[in-house]
Amino acid sequence: MNAVANTAVVDLLGVLAYAELTAFDRLAEDARLAPSLAGRAALARMAAAEIGHHGRLTARLAELGADPEAAMAPFAPALDAFHENTRPRNWLEGLVKAYVGDGLAADFYREIAAFLPHPDRALVEEVLADTGHADFALREVRAAIAADRKVAGRLALWARRLVGEAISRSQAVVADRDELGQLIMEGTGDLGGLALLIDRITTAHSARMRALGLRD
Amino acid sequence: MNAVANTAVVDLLGVLAYAELTAFDRLAEDARLAPSLAGRAALARMAAAEIGHHGRLTARLAELGADPEAAMAPFAPALDAFHENTRPRNWLEGLVKAYVGDGLAADFYREIAAFLPHPDRALVEEVLADTGHADFALREVRAAIAADRKVAGRLALWARRLVGEAISRSQAVVADRDELGQLIMEGTGDLGGLALLIDRITTAHSARMRALGLRD
Repeated sequence: MNAVANTAVVDLLGVLAYAELTAFDRLAEDARLAPSLAGRAALARMAAAEIGHHGRLTARLAELGADPEAAMAPFAPALDAFHENTRPRNWLEGLVKAYVGDGLAADFYREIAAFLPHPDRALVEEVLADTGHADFALREVRAAIAADRKVAGRLALWARRLVGEAISRSQAVVADRDELGQLIMEGTGDLGGLALLIDRITTAHSARMRALGLRD
Repeated sequence: MNAVANTAVVDLLGVLAYAELTAFDRLAEDARLAPSLAGRAALARMAAAEIGHHGRLTARLAELGADPEAAMAPFAPALDAFHENTRPRNWLEGLVKAYVGDGLAADFYREIAAFLPHPDRALVEEVLADTGHADFALREVRAAIAADRKVAGRLALWARRLVGEAISRSQAVVADRDELGQLIMEGTGDLGGLALLIDRITTAHSARMRALGLRD
């Protein structure tokens, strides 16, 4: 592996490792908004799965000779700011964030991972595999919308805010990390390839919004 | 199993299941006080282990024909109040609470579990097995005391407050749950047996305080 690719691998594993750590935090916090003990335990179990992924990623970073803390550090400000600015005010906002926000992020990370050599590509795909919150969030949000149609409008606005915040934060991160940007440009081949990548992510996002019963 | 024993089993599994759910919450919250990302991940992993135990206990409750939510509900006010009144103000207080408080609680639950038939006795012993926080907390607290002796006095006071709060809350719970009280009285045999049980718990507590380098 050349130096650029190696730096990009460490960057991608680093951002993912920090993302999993914050996902743990956030799910643990949102669990307290649950209307029932069963819902609270369900979110806590998802948080537990995220911290398991975090451990896999930091172990791989150490194996690559990288210091996990140093690999995560550059991404902490952007991810912390994202969560600070998109703190759910209630249980449903938390679930929409888990489904729409994490879905968007996972698609983005997966696209970049496709440019990585094995075994890192497989590791990223494995830690991004759904931990059960997609189905759980879908079920709860659809039930809430069925019970009160007004909920849909508010949650659609919330989802749009999440996406806007996610796009601006990730653009800033990629602009700041030369090797990561280079990996994406080399991987997509040209601007046409990049446009296709963005199109795939956008299409998947629209499908998730429709599945929730929300207009994007 | 007679009806008294069965109610007591459901009570013990119920209080433990809720205790594990709050342990998850508390460890997840205290993780954010960690001075490093590695410490934060370590506490998050312990939280993940607790929620795994919670799942084992609720599965067993369901198997016994009990509704897990209903089994946990009577114990929520006492456990919530305990945590509300013993919220750590910093990383070290959180670790002392995990080590001293959870150690004391685990000893108490284990003594009661000894009166249960199999497989519930084995299940309780299994979920109470240390998830690694004892060693981790010991190491961190001893290092902090070595660096600054004044820390020891403050943490000893804190530990005393934890114990006082734990004793008064658990007395109230046992007084409120007839079958649980009866199980303990029948299990210990007489007041002499009960005194021995309390003595064992107190001795183990003093050993933990000494291991931390604190006077009890």
